[in-house]
Amino acid sequence: MSISVRTDLAQEAYEMLTEAAEELSGIESHNETTEGIGIHRVLVKTDEAASRIGKPCGNYITVELPSLSLATGEEISAACRLISKELRRLLSLSPDKTVLVIGLGNRSITPDALGPEVVSQLLITRHLFSQLSEDATEHFRPVCAISPGVLGITGIETEEIVRGVVERVKPDCVLCIDALAARSMHRVGATVQLCDTGIAPGAGVGNRRHALNRETLGVPVIALGVPTVIDAATITADTLSLITKAMKKESGKDTPFLGVLSTMEPEDCAFLAKDALSSEIGNFIVTPKEVDLLIDKISKLVADSINHALFEDLSPDEITEFLS
Amino acid sequence: MSISVRTDLAQEAYEMLTEAAEELSGIESHNETTEGIGIHRVLVKTDEAASRIGKPCGNYITVELPSLSLATGEEISAACRLISKELRRLLSLSPDKTVLVIGLGNRSITPDALGPEVVSQLLITRHLFSQLSEDATEHFRPVCAISPGVLGITGIETEEIVRGVVERVKPDCVLCIDALAARSMHRVGATVQLCDTGIAPGAGVGNRRHALNRETLGVPVIALGVPTVIDAATITADTLSLITKAMKKESGKDTPFLGVLSTMEPEDCAFLAKDALSSEIGNFIVTPKEVDLLIDKISKLVADSINHALFEDLSPDEITEFLS
Amino acid sequence: MSISVRTDLAQEAYEMLTEAAEELSGIESHNETTEGIGIHRVLVKTDEAASRIGKPCGNYITVELPSLSLATGEEISAACRLISKELRRLLSLSPDKTVLVIGLGNRSITPDALGPEVVSQLLITRHLFSQLSEDATEHFRPVCAISPGVLGITGIETEEIVRGVVERVKPDCVLCIDALAARSMHRVGATVQLCDTGIAPGAGVGNRRHALNRETLGVPVIALGVPTVIDAATITADTLSLITKAMKKESGKDTPFLGVLSTMEPEDCAFLAKDALSSEIGNFIVTPKEVDLLIDKISKLVADSINHALFEDLSPDEITEFLS
Amino acid sequence: MSISVRTDLAQEAYEMLTEAAEELSGIESHNETTEGIGIHRVLVKTDEAASRIGKPCGNYITVELPSLSLATGEEISAACRLISKELRRLLSLSPDKTVLVIGLGNRSITPDALGPEVVSQLLITRHLFSQLSEDATEHFRPVCAISPGVLGITGIETEEIVRGVVERVKPDCVLCIDALAARSMHRVGATVQLCDTGIAPGAGVGNRRHALNRETLGVPVIALGVPTVIDAATITADTLSLITKAMKKESGKDTPFLGVLSTMEPEDCAFLAKDALSSEIGNFIVTPKEVDLLIDKISKLVADSINHALFEDLSPDEITEFLS
Repeated sequence: MSISVRTDLAQEAYEMLTEAAEELSGIESHNETTEGIGIHRVLVKTDEAASRIGKPCGNYITVELPSLSLATGEEISAACRLISKELRRLLSLSPDKTVLVIGLGNRSITPDALGPEVVSQLLITRHLFSQLSEDATEHFRPVCAISPGVLGITGIETEEIVRGVVERVKPDCVLCIDALAARSMHRVGATVQLCDTGIAPGAGVGNRRHALNRETLGVPVIALGVPTVIDAATITADTLSLITKAMKKESGKDTPFLGVLSTMEPEDCAFLAKDALSSEIGNFIVTPKEVDLLIDKISKLVADSINHALFEDLSPDEITEFLS
Repeated sequence: MSISVRTDLAQEAYEMLTEAAEELSGIESHNETTEGIGIHRVLVKTDEAASRIGKPCGNYITVELPSLSLATGEEISAACRLISKELRRLLSLSPDKTVLVIGLGNRSITPDALGPEVVSQLLITRHLFSQLSEDATEHFRPVCAISPGVLGITGIETEEIVRGVVERVKPDCVLCIDALAARSMHRVGATVQLCDTGIAPGAGVGNRRHALNRETLGVPVIALGVPTVIDAATITADTLSLITKAMKKESGKDTPFLGVLSTMEPEDCAFLAKDALSSEIGNFIVTPKEVDLLIDKISKLVADSINHALFEDLSPDEITEFLS
Repeated sequence: MSISVRTDLAQEAYEMLTEAAEELSGIESHNETTEGIGIHRVLVKTDEAASRIGKPCGNYITVELPSLSLATGEEISAACRLISKELRRLLSLSPDKTVLVIGLGNRSITPDALGPEVVSQLLITRHLFSQLSEDATEHFRPVCAISPGVLGITGIETEEIVRGVVERVKPDCVLCIDALAARSMHRVGATVQLCDTGIAPGAGVGNRRHALNRETLGVPVIALGVPTVIDAATITADTLSLITKAMKKESGKDTPFLGVLSTMEPEDCAFLAKDALSSEIGNFIVTPKEVDLLIDKISKLVADSINHALFEDLSPDEITEFLS
Repeated sequence: MSISVRTDLAQEAYEMLTEAAEELSGIESHNETTEGIGIHRVLVKTDEAASRIGKPCGNYITVELPSLSLATGEEISAACRLISKELRRLLSLSPDKTVLVIGLGNRSITPDALGPEVVSQLLITRHLFSQLSEDATEHFRPVCAISPGVLGITGIETEEIVRGVVERVKPDCVLCIDALAARSMHRVGATVQLCDTGIAPGAGVGNRRHALNRETLGVPVIALGVPTVIDAATITADTLSLITKAMKKESGKDTPFLGVLSTMEPEDCAFLAKDALSSEIGNFIVTPKEVDLLIDKISKLVADSINHALFEDLSPDEITEFLS
């Protein structure tokens, strides 16, 4: 059975399989803690496992962020260093290779604006290579970036625009930034997912329709995403599930008190919820009250992490200087 | 029993009482349709009825908006004319009286920004009375406006700021604009509520803490609100209620199949939902995906309606000219 | 001698040639007034004339706008109809041809944001052709649009991105929207220029570096621009010129009173001004105080004009409906 | 003779007096450099001197900022520390005294939005005193803040709103934040002025009409301002002055070559420029191209400086925690 409650996080999908006591062969998982920050790794190894977990074969790394509203400067720097390190490992590029960053999403829908916001804070250098001497450019790689907009605004599939640009720019690697949908509230704004499988159809807050990956673009595609919303259907399913759990606990396991709900799996709850709300729910999102502020802070953290990953030889202060 | 699911709309509260077959004495209700637009009137007449419906004694008028994304220019003009007319009736002011408009809410949380957005589009004239000749000002009333911000940003209760300004400006009437929370999704962005009872504590997206009314400000206080969010707790309660209804229908009324849920009232569902989600839900809101666009359109409609209500003698084109 | 004071408006360049009593062969000019709105046409016919006036060979049409802050709804509609009509004439496309609109400029520098702002208000239809039946789409053309960003933000020449997209989308015509620099203050926000020569290097508020025209893109390129800034160097040159004129008038033509300034041409004034300010002036712009509001209003007018030009068979209300 | 070219900076006014070899009695001036940052102090001691320099009697402290686009984190921290220290000295308040911060200016005109932007980043605590225990609040003072808007938007003099709030809140001190107009381009975004004389009529980008000072508000009023624009008239006057200087140098002092311009003082140049441009210039401003970015960076620096001045006992990390 596949996952019917939507999550863009491989770690959540993995946890749902585990909870449901599903077969986990073909999937490796590993948790660790570095500098007080939790890192979860999921490796999907077989097509059969990919279909079970609902994510393409590849590496998925989830870095837990400190609460952005409470974290000290030092804790945020630590998270930034960790994301940089994981990103460099996935990119695995020599320092002269060109990277094209794609900021996915709709900048006029706040929780979907993460990609464009990150792109606007990146250190962009590709155009300097024609203007500066070789000496001046030997310490950094060519980096370029676009925010292609979304289908409803452009009338052009994101994938078409990106392919057009990739064909002309010929980058060695593409890095996609996207806002994601999570299943549980406590992961919103609190997790960064990195993967080497690109963007799958249906992912992202706005539900991208076409894949952006090595097959479609011809170069490695790394994706970095942060959950900024939860599905309204998901939240009701979760509630339902919490309620039935609470009632089961109170009433004892075997009473018929709860009727059919007592035997329902979370997936069935989700199905019921989606069905009940189907006519209108699609136009609503569940998002933190202060999502404007959250996007500000997360996009800065993500942009810093990418800048440090792509310009390893530059100190933070040197990057600040270039960014002016 | 009082209403436990939160709604700022008297019309919704009235419908909930009706559905629950509650006592309606002390409450008058009237529906009509003008120019194709539905208008609902609720008059709360006794303290006892006020306590049952959860709204202070007074007049509540709900005007149904055409779908803002589909409406033609003419339909929007018709809605604007109707809101103006109802507003003028509530204000009941001779043309030389001063009106102070208060834009409540937090301008940096999009669904709470309705008040400040409306205020920024009003025709403001009070300061012209010291600059222009009497001839030039005889065709319009003095109008002034402030957006006082919210407690978390200012450290000052909104009521304190408004009282300070009222004491100096001495308006004849105060008009408060606020974003509201509705119970059902189809009312979000689709309804304007006018009332002559001011703003009650706990109303509004950001939950105002103190009342703004004739008692606290010393002059009549009219309020105009538009629902822009629904409570996350409410949405889950609604889902639960829909699900139980659906299951009842499928399973027949008398089977024990649904257990306790089959006998639960909506209020109990809401209670369960709130309880289950209590730890995190307070920080989340359920809002239309395109809330940025919605606030743009609604704030323009509301500002137009207020401008036409306050400057009856000026044509729309004359108001546009003044607004420049 | 070529024009040394910068203007992106062919009409201004033409007036400067006339004032300087320059040779006008190879240039045709025509003024008319329709519905109270002035239209100026300049046709540059020879390469030699193109070099004198500083604009490529082709048609330049300037439509004078009513003051946006004072105009009535009817006056704005009239301007909109006129711009639509001129645009349709330049496009000269059968109703099934695909148009790609390019919103040039930097959306985070307000006076340069016209292009992206216009694009966000266009009726986009190209993606509907794969989703709707032929019946449903027979009344409108495929329109798509991108805002490619600027070189400093993307690291990619705008021309590269546009060529990449043109190669994949294969439009029949490209329409570029750009914010321009004018020479005189009274044209800022008060004029729309249409031309069939595309965008020349050095044009636009941000000084585009590469041409976007039929030669570089392989399809006809129409450009629509509105001046939103004046050069700081230009404003000082103009002042200098006004001052010397005023002093000449006061002092009589032949006195040595004014020294060398009395014999200076505007170009020399501009040269002096640029030289004197050269070290810092490049980072400053001269712009209307209320430029945020101006961009709002102009982008709406321009987007309406384009929508009506591209969808001639749809009424304004039908376009509004589609835009939802 | 009074200063006719507009500057809100006492330091610039002082330099203009010095250049013009004016009488300086009643004015003390002192320059120093701390941690590589220049500080200029001007003390206006007599009414007669106040009239000459065009600023009320009191202390004016100008702190030179490092170039915000090039500064390292450490340089920005140093500037922040210095501004904090000077601000604390001017405030001279025991740690339990209440401060009311006023963010002056129009938030929808970018270069005038400094005040509201700063206010939105302050640590606000006054409302916590009713919610927290005495223990929890003993380490910080009550701070509150409002952004009252501008006369054209509210119809109410800023001074009226502020007085209304001061009367209810009864702060021990008022701190006004405002965007200023400078005379020379290189001071825009590069200087912070602190003073103990409040805001004088005519100061600020939007030209405040009434004073905010100890006389009008009844408590000490400290003002902090940053120049974000230069007058368009000023820029042309400066150019004229630079040109005449350059021409004098080239032509030798005594030739009649330059006519009357060679003997003109800067004030006369300004007068000429203002006169020549008078009809339109008032609606234009001269501002850095990247003013949006500049306001972002400066408002953060100013807010940090104020937070550290008002909460001396809290570390930067503790302030960050509270700000969440």
